[in-house]
Amino acid sequence: MRQYPRPLNKLINELSKLPGIGGKTAQRLAFHILSLSDREAEALAEAIVSAKKNLRYCSECGNLTDQDKCLICSDATRDRSVICVVETPQDVVAMERIREYKGLYHVLHGAISPAEGIGPNDINLKSLITRLQASDEVKEIIIATNPNIEGEATAMYISRLLKPAGIKVTRIAHGIPVGGDLEYADEVTLLKAIEGRREL
Amino acid sequence: MRQYPRPLNKLINELSKLPGIGGKTAQRLAFHILSLSDREAEALAEAIVSAKKNLRYCSECGNLTDQDKCLICSDATRDRSVICVVETPQDVVAMERIREYKGLYHVLHGAISPAEGIGPNDINLKSLITRLQASDEVKEIIIATNPNIEGEATAMYISRLLKPAGIKVTRIAHGIPVGGDLEYADEVTLLKAIEGRREL
Repeated sequence: MRQYPRPLNKLINELSKLPGIGGKTAQRLAFHILSLSDREAEALAEAIVSAKKNLRYCSECGNLTDQDKCLICSDATRDRSVICVVETPQDVVAMERIREYKGLYHVLHGAISPAEGIGPNDINLKSLITRLQASDEVKEIIIATNPNIEGEATAMYISRLLKPAGIKVTRIAHGIPVGGDLEYADEVTLLKAIEGRREL
Repeated sequence: MRQYPRPLNKLINELSKLPGIGGKTAQRLAFHILSLSDREAEALAEAIVSAKKNLRYCSECGNLTDQDKCLICSDATRDRSVICVVETPQDVVAMERIREYKGLYHVLHGAISPAEGIGPNDINLKSLITRLQASDEVKEIIIATNPNIEGEATAMYISRLLKPAGIKVTRIAHGIPVGGDLEYADEVTLLKAIEGRREL
């Protein structure tokens, strides 16, 4: 079977390596890229290389940054007595979106998962301990790992690790999402909602 | 709202300009690109730039190529007495996939659409006439534009243009797709299928 010319095949092939991009979509994207101006195509290529080259993890919290310390860690107005532990940099952005939380973060880059062979040493956890030892400002650790098996296991592990040191460790609430429907809530969520009930 | 560091924002922004890639998908792709090795990310960026730089249209048929003439036009074994007229280079690949057609192609890069202000001079049609004038080998023009209003209008226009010159102009058949279900075929397709019936 005759194929596209080589540079186009190569582009389709590279694009189809991206997650969720199948052969058909890669082909569509490739033809779109061909329809761009030279400048636009170069801007896309440059953004890829520049992001790879200039992004690193914050030396303090593990969040993504293009400096040594991320914007949040280097912001003097943030409350240094609270650290919110999350799994990924995306979770930091989700938390920031509520515009309410003013503390710091710690990004684990994963969660403990015995099933996948990921232990406490395989995630960015040691540096949290180092951080806590270096500072006596921290009063509370909010664990905001995902409400699934791995996230819960990680939360449990961190809580057991830190409580002896006298640091307050909290877990974000699980329950019915705002705007959600009780009728369609799964049993586990409903159970969490009842367990976490508060007096009015 | 605090955002991602600038190089990451730029990458998400560039990716979300691609067709069918929304903000969430762009974010997912960007994080995937960050997880690639430097070499892999550069391969992707390079493929984009190289495809833009090295691909042009075949000087004879308008198909995509990285040489002056495309692989098909420069293939001496192809039957030069038949030219199949299609709308896009993707259509050439679709035709080649059946492995049966051994003639040449002519890529219009569009179709006549009065509604969108696209006339016969806005598509790659003049060069087909030039091609026919330059060669007396061509015996048949198969019009394989899409079976929609624009494709039909284009087919009709080309047919009227070439018939006076005594060239056989044919149109690909429309009808029920193989494996399709009569019950679910739309009326127009069914009508085309009946009109195009053949004796057994």
